[in-house]
Amino acid sequence: MRMAKPLLFGEDKNTVATVREVALIEKIRLWLGEVAPACPEGMGDDTAAVDPGPGRLLLGMDPVVYGRHFDDNATPEAVGAKLLKRNLSDIAAMGGIPDHALLGLVLSGDVSLVWLEGFVRGLKECAQRYGVKIVGGDIAQGPDKSFIAQLSLTGHAARPVPRLGGQIGDTLWVTGQLGGSLAGWHLDFVPRLPEGQWLAAQPGLRGMIDVTDGLAADLPKLLPPASVAMLDLDKIPVSDAAQKAAATSSQNALDHALGDGEDYELAFVLDKDTNALAFVAQWKDATALPLSCIGRIERQPEGIAEHTLLDAATGQPIAGPGGYEHFKA
Amino acid sequence: MRMAKPLLFGEDKNTVATVREVALIEKIRLWLGEVAPACPEGMGDDTAAVDPGPGRLLLGMDPVVYGRHFDDNATPEAVGAKLLKRNLSDIAAMGGIPDHALLGLVLSGDVSLVWLEGFVRGLKECAQRYGVKIVGGDIAQGPDKSFIAQLSLTGHAARPVPRLGGQIGDTLWVTGQLGGSLAGWHLDFVPRLPEGQWLAAQPGLRGMIDVTDGLAADLPKLLPPASVAMLDLDKIPVSDAAQKAAATSSQNALDHALGDGEDYELAFVLDKDTNALAFVAQWKDATALPLSCIGRIERQPEGIAEHTLLDAATGQPIAGPGGYEHFKA
Repeated sequence: MRMAKPLLFGEDKNTVATVREVALIEKIRLWLGEVAPACPEGMGDDTAAVDPGPGRLLLGMDPVVYGRHFDDNATPEAVGAKLLKRNLSDIAAMGGIPDHALLGLVLSGDVSLVWLEGFVRGLKECAQRYGVKIVGGDIAQGPDKSFIAQLSLTGHAARPVPRLGGQIGDTLWVTGQLGGSLAGWHLDFVPRLPEGQWLAAQPGLRGMIDVTDGLAADLPKLLPPASVAMLDLDKIPVSDAAQKAAATSSQNALDHALGDGEDYELAFVLDKDTNALAFVAQWKDATALPLSCIGRIERQPEGIAEHTLLDAATGQPIAGPGGYEHFKA
Repeated sequence: MRMAKPLLFGEDKNTVATVREVALIEKIRLWLGEVAPACPEGMGDDTAAVDPGPGRLLLGMDPVVYGRHFDDNATPEAVGAKLLKRNLSDIAAMGGIPDHALLGLVLSGDVSLVWLEGFVRGLKECAQRYGVKIVGGDIAQGPDKSFIAQLSLTGHAARPVPRLGGQIGDTLWVTGQLGGSLAGWHLDFVPRLPEGQWLAAQPGLRGMIDVTDGLAADLPKLLPPASVAMLDLDKIPVSDAAQKAAATSSQNALDHALGDGEDYELAFVLDKDTNALAFVAQWKDATALPLSCIGRIERQPEGIAEHTLLDAATGQPIAGPGGYEHFKA
C-alpha cells in the first residue's frame, strides 16, 4: 500500500496561519532536534556565533521554490533534503567540507503543518548524514500558494578548487552518469562530497564544477579563454534514465545526457601531464562511482566561437556559447 | 518636482522575463560594481571562498518580501538598503563587524528591470557605506507578482554579545527613540553598528538585542529565568513619529513606542555594579545618539508571570509573555 503524500497547501485546518510566528519557529527547532544547536552556536540570538573551519571560508546559497524546483509529485522529505543537497553539491565542487546552514522560509498562510514537518524531517536527516548544523534563519509570510526556502551554507577548504584553472591540452572528466534526472534523480541525487574532497587533494586537479544546468551548459564554465572542448561523444556517460526519457521524447539519449541538467555530478579538468591510468586506478581504490574521461581542452580553431563544444570524431560543433543545440546523430 | 517612482511590476516591456538568467546575473554584478568582487573572493564560482575575520564567525539571514516588509510607497533604493540594514542591525546587536553577504532573489517575470536596478543601487550604496562585500547568491523564478530577497550576512566579533546574560538587579537601557517607524524610519533607520561595537567592549555589558518587534516584545528576550522587567515609563524614549502616530490612532504615544516595532535600536543590560554616571559620560564622548536607562531586572514576584513588564510607579503589569497589552494611562 502506498501512503498518501501530504498536500503542501491547506488540506485541512492545520496550516501555518493557525500558529503564531514564535510558536512556529519553536516547532521547527523541535523538529530539527540535534542538528539545531542552542545559543550561541545556534538559533535563538540575533545571529549565530560559530567557529569557522580551518582554511578558507566557503559561502553559498541556493533555494527550492514550489513550482520551480519541485511540484506536487515530490514528498516533503525529498524537498527538504534537496534544499540542503543542492547547496552541498556546490561545496563538493569546491572540494570543501560543509559546516553551518541558515534556513530562510517564505510561506503563504495555507502551507500545511504536516507537509512542513515532513520537509523539516527530510532536511534534518540530510543534515545529520553530512554533519551540517542548522544555526539560524528567518520565517516570513509570502504570496498566496507560495513555498520558498532559501538555504545559505558555509564550509571550509584548505585549497578551494576554482572552476577556471584548466589549460590547453588538459583533459575533461565527469563523475557518475548523466541525463533524465526529472524522472527522480533531481530529488534522489547524492552530493559528491567525498569525491570532491578526494579530487581537491590530487595535484593534477585544475578546475571543477557541479553539473546543474546540463553538461553542455556547464562544461564551458571550465574552459579558459580562446579554447574549445573536444569531446569523445561515445565516452559521455549516458544514464538509464536518459535512455528511458529518449524512448518517449523527440531527443536521443545523448541529447538528454548533455542537456537535461540537475545531474549534480562533478565535471573537472585534469592537468595534461597527469598519468591518467594511474589516476583512474587511484580513483577506483577510493570510490565505486563511475568516472569518465570525456575529452580535452583545445585551442579555439579559426571560425569557431570560444567555448564551443566539438565532436572529436567529426570536428563538428555540438553546442556553442549560446547553449546546447540538439545533437544531430 | 517629485520624481516618479518606478513601479515594481511590469510598467513596461522592460522586465526580468525579457532577459536570460545568465544575462540578469551579469547585469546585477555590473550594477553592484566594486562591492561584488571577482572569484575566488566573490561571484562566479560554485561558492565564494573568503577569509573569515578574527574571532567568532557570525551568521545571520533576513529577507525583504513585497507586501510584507515594503509596499509600493517605498523607493527601490530604500528597499535594497533596508535588506542589508536589517541584517546589519543583527550584527550590531552581537557587537560584531559585518563582512560578506549572499543575495538570494526570487522574482516573478514581471519585475521591472528599472525597479530592480534601483534596488541593487540602494543595496550597493549601503554595502559601500558599511564595508560589506556581496560575494554570491542565486536568482530563481517565483510566483506571480512576487519579489522576495533573502540576504545572508556574515560578520565577526572577538566577544559576541548574547541576548541572555543579565541578572537580577542589572539595569535595562535602550538607544535612540522608539515608535511610529511605519511613517518612514522602517526604511530610513541607521543600523547601530559603531554603538554595538562600543557597547560590546564595555566590561559591564551583559546582554543585547536589536528592537525589531517592539520594545515590549523584545525586552523579555533579555530577561533571565524567574525575572521581570521593572520599567520607568517616563524614561521610555518616545519618538516624534510616535507622537504623530498617536494623534491619528486609538493608541497613545507610549503605546506606539512600546509596540510598533522596526525601531532597529539596541536594547541592552548593564551589570548592576557599573557606575551608570561614568558609563553615560563615556557614551556621550563616543556618540551623539540618545541613551536611556529605562528600568531594571527584578526577581519575579509571586502571582506575576515570568518576563512580565511592570510599571515601576504603580507595580502594575503593562505587558506579559503573551505580548504587549495596550497601556492604559
